[in-house]
Amino acid sequence: MRIDLNADVGEGRSATVAGSDAPPHADAALMPSITSANVACGFHAGDPGVMRATVALARAHGVAVGAHPGFPDLEGFGRRELHVAPHDVEDFVVYQVGALAAIGAAQGVRLQHVKPHGALFNMAVRDRALADAVARAAVVIDRELILFGLPGSEIVAAGARAGLRTAREGFADRAYRADGTLVPRSEPGAVIHDPEIVVERAVRMVRDGVVDAIDGSRVRLAIDTLCVHGDTPGAAELAARIRQALVAADVEVKAVGAS
Amino acid sequence: MRIDLNADVGEGRSATVAGSDAPPHADAALMPSITSANVACGFHAGDPGVMRATVALARAHGVAVGAHPGFPDLEGFGRRELHVAPHDVEDFVVYQVGALAAIGAAQGVRLQHVKPHGALFNMAVRDRALADAVARAAVVIDRELILFGLPGSEIVAAGARAGLRTAREGFADRAYRADGTLVPRSEPGAVIHDPEIVVERAVRMVRDGVVDAIDGSRVRLAIDTLCVHGDTPGAAELAARIRQALVAADVEVKAVGAS
Amino acid sequence: MRIDLNADVGEGRSATVAGSDAPPHADAALMPSITSANVACGFHAGDPGVMRATVALARAHGVAVGAHPGFPDLEGFGRRELHVAPHDVEDFVVYQVGALAAIGAAQGVRLQHVKPHGALFNMAVRDRALADAVARAAVVIDRELILFGLPGSEIVAAGARAGLRTAREGFADRAYRADGTLVPRSEPGAVIHDPEIVVERAVRMVRDGVVDAIDGSRVRLAIDTLCVHGDTPGAAELAARIRQALVAADVEVKAVGAS
Amino acid sequence: MRIDLNADVGEGRSATVAGSDAPPHADAALMPSITSANVACGFHAGDPGVMRATVALARAHGVAVGAHPGFPDLEGFGRRELHVAPHDVEDFVVYQVGALAAIGAAQGVRLQHVKPHGALFNMAVRDRALADAVARAAVVIDRELILFGLPGSEIVAAGARAGLRTAREGFADRAYRADGTLVPRSEPGAVIHDPEIVVERAVRMVRDGVVDAIDGSRVRLAIDTLCVHGDTPGAAELAARIRQALVAADVEVKAVGAS
Repeated sequence: MRIDLNADVGEGRSATVAGSDAPPHADAALMPSITSANVACGFHAGDPGVMRATVALARAHGVAVGAHPGFPDLEGFGRRELHVAPHDVEDFVVYQVGALAAIGAAQGVRLQHVKPHGALFNMAVRDRALADAVARAAVVIDRELILFGLPGSEIVAAGARAGLRTAREGFADRAYRADGTLVPRSEPGAVIHDPEIVVERAVRMVRDGVVDAIDGSRVRLAIDTLCVHGDTPGAAELAARIRQALVAADVEVKAVGAS
Repeated sequence: MRIDLNADVGEGRSATVAGSDAPPHADAALMPSITSANVACGFHAGDPGVMRATVALARAHGVAVGAHPGFPDLEGFGRRELHVAPHDVEDFVVYQVGALAAIGAAQGVRLQHVKPHGALFNMAVRDRALADAVARAAVVIDRELILFGLPGSEIVAAGARAGLRTAREGFADRAYRADGTLVPRSEPGAVIHDPEIVVERAVRMVRDGVVDAIDGSRVRLAIDTLCVHGDTPGAAELAARIRQALVAADVEVKAVGAS
Repeated sequence: MRIDLNADVGEGRSATVAGSDAPPHADAALMPSITSANVACGFHAGDPGVMRATVALARAHGVAVGAHPGFPDLEGFGRRELHVAPHDVEDFVVYQVGALAAIGAAQGVRLQHVKPHGALFNMAVRDRALADAVARAAVVIDRELILFGLPGSEIVAAGARAGLRTAREGFADRAYRADGTLVPRSEPGAVIHDPEIVVERAVRMVRDGVVDAIDGSRVRLAIDTLCVHGDTPGAAELAARIRQALVAADVEVKAVGAS
Repeated sequence: MRIDLNADVGEGRSATVAGSDAPPHADAALMPSITSANVACGFHAGDPGVMRATVALARAHGVAVGAHPGFPDLEGFGRRELHVAPHDVEDFVVYQVGALAAIGAAQGVRLQHVKPHGALFNMAVRDRALADAVARAAVVIDRELILFGLPGSEIVAAGARAGLRTAREGFADRAYRADGTLVPRSEPGAVIHDPEIVVERAVRMVRDGVVDAIDGSRVRLAIDTLCVHGDTPGAAELAARIRQALVAADVEVKAVGAS
């Protein structure tokens, strides 16, 4: 058994990250526990300087680098649905992933994967045309890119149609519905805060391929990568505990693109 | 003896503050210790939703509300110098303070003060035309607004010229030069991290009107308001300690605009 | 008979408007023909400097000034639907109208009206909660503000509920459906380009209270203000012809808020 | 004798360019006359959709495509100096050129050149560290990129140091100082509006290698590419006249990167 642990990183901005009074950088604490880093590309979070610093951080920790493109919505952190045409989404993704690919190239880092962010992620779960647009954009950048998405989602199907390798993603700290989709953040119980439960769900998801849905039913879930959230207090410690528990359960923790 | 304690607040963005997985909001922890809140106005940080929430928070704690206008530079957090004409600065400040005044009015809160942020703050210390532009903008909004600035700075002089009340500001956690100006953040030793020293400096500044400069010399400093930083770890606790130490030294801690 | 002629203005940006190689400013050419100016407030177009210059231009021509708030979407010109909660819309509108009100106050100009822009305009036509949010925001700024909206739309109803005066708006160069709503810009025939036809429709709308819908049916339409588009080539000339034709038809052309 | 004719293009935004009521697109009218297109990359102007459309337009006309990166300053059109460190500039340029390179790759177009925009252009003329940062960024993207710059400027020297091919640029409609630098736009006479004079200057610059400075002195100027401005009324016609006059003077008009 094998799993990739991914986290969203690089969501700060240069001025505060680099400033002399920078808060302790949560990303650095997370890196030892993850194997894939989803780097924000400047549309919903991050900026060129943060992108460079985050790629360098991931590289130093041997963590694979992926792009985390979102809607152009800094204020709303890319979590607000924006009604645009599929070709707009394709343009957004080509632009952002192209920018990160160049920043990676400057450090000899080739991108491993693409994972849409926030509202774009959610819309690409259910909207085929939008999912195809994301996949087309990834193909333009690099045919070897791995597309991350919810098992059974349109984005995973779109990746397959486009000839891309895909990775099915699970969320240990998010509640699931009986149909295997995530409970939206706006609903109660969407995020699981108890670390014990999160760790236990992570192990069951990876080892047993199941998760308990919010209605109590058991959902089968085959995943290749597990998302660890980095923006909550205690996130780094939780990620470390998840990794330890997985290793203790004889799961190999390794980047999805690693041979 | 009497002092106002001010802090920069409202520097987050709606999506992360309001989201179900929001980090514990540092501003809320700070409010019990301060008497004046400098609310970011959307150009370098903050957004309409955060502004509304922050005004409500200050109001609930009986903390006076002021505007903290900056350069239009979300990415750089308003800390990068932008070369614009004084009339551009006037437009920037009228726009931002006008927006916050409206958000305040919706809650029955009248603004108490204006304190420029970051690079705009630094440039208004030494540039007379720019300082006059800030003062003119404040007059447009409300002639009763109090302008915050470094003692002896152009901004304080500009406020006086414009007929505005001014408040001289001190920084307990920032190093001073022998001439009473702040050591820029880009230089070593600019920010003092040891809470013991910060608390001691705060009391000496307020009670004795002196601060030790970075070259060891003693600087005389008459201040009306003391800035407490809120964006560092332990900031709320430090603010609480500063307030306690001031009260213990028989200093009345009160908003500068309170009668 | 009497009509107000309004146009969207102030949609440029300072650097290009003020620069030495600025293109001839279309707004200036339009001013002699209109009676109400809808000034962009920086979210979908415009910026503080353009807002100041545009208010000054309107003032010099005796044109009433109103706010034209939109979604925070510079890239999409505010024409893309953004899914936000009604309280977010209220915050957006308070912020933008508050900013413009301050810029107006600096020149002794009190705002006459509020007209939502683009996707916000369209959504407020049909979404009651959103329309109420816009109306509440206007009330916060100034209870005398006049809310512009399509006859029969939710925004006009919301204005009435909030105790605001409202003005029903017609569009001479936009195609109507049989139910009195506008044909969306994305559909063929949405915009009428032939000046002859536009002028004729303007006169019939104002004098006779009717317009021919895209399906050939005749729609009754009682309007208080007629929108003249300013961003098309020949816009100023067209506006002048519309005004002349209205005057020739014995219609008094006057700002809706003028006594 | 041979010259490249370049112009800044793609400075609009998707919503207005693509909308059904889009103004006639100036870029399309310019394309038949130029040989190199400097495409804005989203920081000071343009956006992913406009970039895609502009690359397609250039490709259809056989015009070489280059990147026109600027400061992150949509409001100020990148014409305002922003004080950032050289490594920030490097990040800005890698990001923008990387994004455009990806958009080009999607259409089978490889970038020919990089030309900094506005304040970044001006600062890179005189600031060696900044010029080196731009050159380093170009090398990261593609070692075959040609760096455009004023003859004798730091940017041309930086390109040479970095092993890049460079192209010396002249401006037919801008006034020169006796030292061969441009008269800043903020000064009177900076832009020459008379088409006759502009055409004549273009021919003299290219054929004779001289230009008359604003003080009347004659300046020697060896150039590889001539900038034609596209954002002024009549720009396309002027560009066509310049091209015709050059051809009539036996100058070969050809992209600088063409064999």
